Amino acid sequence: MSTWKRRRRAPIPEPVAGNGLIDRRILLGRGLAIAGAMGAGGAGALTGAAAEPLKDDPWSLEFGLNTPALQTPSKYEKDVVRSLTNPKAEFRNSHARTPHHLLNGTITPNSLHFSINHAGIPDIDPAQHKLVIHGMVRQPLEFTLETLSRYPLVTRMHFLECAGNSAPMFSSEPMQVTAQAIHGLVSNAEWTGVPLSVLLDEAGIDPSAKWLIAEGADAHFLDRSVPVKKAYEDALVAIYQNGEHLMPGNGYPMRLLLPGYQGNMNVKFLRRIKAVDQPAMSMFESKTYSQILPGGKTWRFHFLMNVKSFITHPSFGQNLKGPGFYAISGVAYSGTGRIARVMVSADGGKSWAEAALQGPVHPKAFTRFVMPWQWDGQAAVLLSRAWDEAGNVQPMRAEFVAARGQSTKPVTNPLAFPNQHYNSITSWSVDSKGEIKHVYV
Amino acid sequence: MSTWKRRRRAPIPEPVAGNGLIDRRILLGRGLAIAGAMGAGGAGALTGAAAEPLKDDPWSLEFGLNTPALQTPSKYEKDVVRSLTNPKAEFRNSHARTPHHLLNGTITPNSLHFSINHAGIPDIDPAQHKLVIHGMVRQPLEFTLETLSRYPLVTRMHFLECAGNSAPMFSSEPMQVTAQAIHGLVSNAEWTGVPLSVLLDEAGIDPSAKWLIAEGADAHFLDRSVPVKKAYEDALVAIYQNGEHLMPGNGYPMRLLLPGYQGNMNVKFLRRIKAVDQPAMSMFESKTYSQILPGGKTWRFHFLMNVKSFITHPSFGQNLKGPGFYAISGVAYSGTGRIARVMVSADGGKSWAEAALQGPVHPKAFTRFVMPWQWDGQAAVLLSRAWDEAGNVQPMRAEFVAARGQSTKPVTNPLAFPNQHYNSITSWSVDSKGEIKHVYV
Repeated sequence: MSTWKRRRRAPIPEPVAGNGLIDRRILLGRGLAIAGAMGAGGAGALTGAAAEPLKDDPWSLEFGLNTPALQTPSKYEKDVVRSLTNPKAEFRNSHARTPHHLLNGTITPNSLHFSINHAGIPDIDPAQHKLVIHGMVRQPLEFTLETLSRYPLVTRMHFLECAGNSAPMFSSEPMQVTAQAIHGLVSNAEWTGVPLSVLLDEAGIDPSAKWLIAEGADAHFLDRSVPVKKAYEDALVAIYQNGEHLMPGNGYPMRLLLPGYQGNMNVKFLRRIKAVDQPAMSMFESKTYSQILPGGKTWRFHFLMNVKSFITHPSFGQNLKGPGFYAISGVAYSGTGRIARVMVSADGGKSWAEAALQGPVHPKAFTRFVMPWQWDGQAAVLLSRAWDEAGNVQPMRAEFVAARGQSTKPVTNPLAFPNQHYNSITSWSVDSKGEIKHVYV
Repeated sequence: MSTWKRRRRAPIPEPVAGNGLIDRRILLGRGLAIAGAMGAGGAGALTGAAAEPLKDDPWSLEFGLNTPALQTPSKYEKDVVRSLTNPKAEFRNSHARTPHHLLNGTITPNSLHFSINHAGIPDIDPAQHKLVIHGMVRQPLEFTLETLSRYPLVTRMHFLECAGNSAPMFSSEPMQVTAQAIHGLVSNAEWTGVPLSVLLDEAGIDPSAKWLIAEGADAHFLDRSVPVKKAYEDALVAIYQNGEHLMPGNGYPMRLLLPGYQGNMNVKFLRRIKAVDQPAMSMFESKTYSQILPGGKTWRFHFLMNVKSFITHPSFGQNLKGPGFYAISGVAYSGTGRIARVMVSADGGKSWAEAALQGPVHPKAFTRFVMPWQWDGQAAVLLSRAWDEAGNVQPMRAEFVAARGQSTKPVTNPLAFPNQHYNSITSWSVDSKGEIKHVYV
């Protein structure tokens, strides 16, 4: 927090990396002459006469809209919605993607949190729903939403990501689509619930139990095997999301939350947890999320979502209005822990500068990064690359493709093509007209 | 984060304060036998036969609901809405209150954030709306939502509270209403915007300017005077709330955010900031929010919202189901900075124990506190009391009433009765049937 000190406007300093990246430390220090550096479309200078009196807009001259019981977005925000793969609820799965290119900060509102449903969304009466913990336990127990609400709850910020997020990045040609279409199957929220370890201790889990089979109450009875160890690290049975009870598409009235593990394991509509000595080999773990690697081996029980970042502003769909100052911004996250550093390049990876991180940096949660940029109107290619506190680094694309492969089709059959756990770099090119395209570097 | 270690269930330890308050440190350590300590309505023990196979609920046996573009709450959550003072949009002001007794964690969803509108909600086209900074500046400037979006944005968690929040607490008799009705004019969100100091530096504010007149574009042209000093501390022009653009009732497309200052000053629909050498003496500062004190003096330009807390669980409207274990939980916040400590009493203030704080603790933001409690089924009175990092403490009610007065009517005329800046303690009594009432201690 700055002390009260008016500052002279300072000119934009010399770049610290190619194509106009500015040292992030300017954001802490002197007042920058950003308005003057914006060029066309920037802040407008007014003469004294133009500034006063102000012209009154039509909405200032009439009594306004009703204040409703539930506040909803402006009609001018009608495009800020999730994109859907099954809008008519046909008898198949349905994906809803978060519009990252239209959001900012770190929280994903519940209305916009990604959601995947394999058999529609069950319309669960929370007074009737029960969670049973059984199997290799001393005393099987059942819990209701009301019972869980009596426990001391913990509150934590965490991202949640589908293992198939960013699948379009496996295409051998860059798809010309938004960050929502590419990366919309990850979101970030404040979760509140009961530590799963507390419930397992209460049931008296057998020391020889190594796995938990978590099962949902949807018509799919979606089930996944979870290592007992994860329950004793940081797993929750979540009952609130961003302050309110879960929404139906995110598991109402309760879901498993396994911070940093692939989304599908965070079983929604959680109805039972069975302690066992070996995994269930259920469909989603033995088939769907057993990624086949180049050479034919399979990534079985590969749960962790690795360190990753992508630029949301500017990105595909947001063309620049002309040369001048812009803030490059995006999100970074890691299933391993906290984000330690994000580097940004504006020249396709030839040179890099460190971005400012918005704190506090939570473990296994979105961290927003910001990079000041003076665009000279020439062609540029924007990349971001993240490191986490454990030293993991987001791989460059060539390195990633060599290890994991790519395919000639963007949406692929998991038995034949790679489509999971993409965590390499996303690159946006800007041409001299300000048009943004998706490119591979 | 605990290491993987199964624990024997430990019995609930002896209380550390009267009427069953348990040391908060149990939440960090051993697995507590909470289920067994819950009594009626707690977790149910199952026999092996009852536990398997599970009975299938009707929603598990059919294809579920559609996945919509905007996710909405379950129909079973229909009571989780803001309470309204003017649901038909009559030609007067309108208050919408946050249902704290039905929420948890720290974030208030945008749909449920409190909102007060004096002339309805203007239906602003963001492409037409402008913010002008003028008056005692070197160069008047105008900004659009698009211009502001090009700045490096900062993201911070902050509460926002109406100066008239908790006005029912000035009643000489405790009103039998929910925490929503009493404290619903405070909420908490993640705000993203441009530091106001950056914009003032760009316009070149005159060193002799001491005040800023901030004016909204609603039909009221609501205006308030803000010390220039506050702009250089932590003021923002906010354009995102909880990740998405502001909702209309919270100032779309842009609002002033003055962390810790009374809500009304955080001017919504912000259309101009004029730098001046003395305050405007506008209606809301010279009349409405100039609280008359006992003895007839007036609290003029008293902006800060002081340290405060209240218990949300259990609270009025949530009767207890029988003796046993409960978590007492609520929110604490201070306009001065971080919450340092929350003490809880279950015996009407005779003895106290320290509650656990959910971290990270942000400055000028909600902090959720949790206190483990073994209720023996006898009469109890629950209180919370907060301290902030500057050493400010929430006053006891007798002390507060002596300094600030009370009235014989719950909703009062500000020219005759006190109704603002209540930050004393809220007390909930529990009788032997588990019924909760609002009481004064």
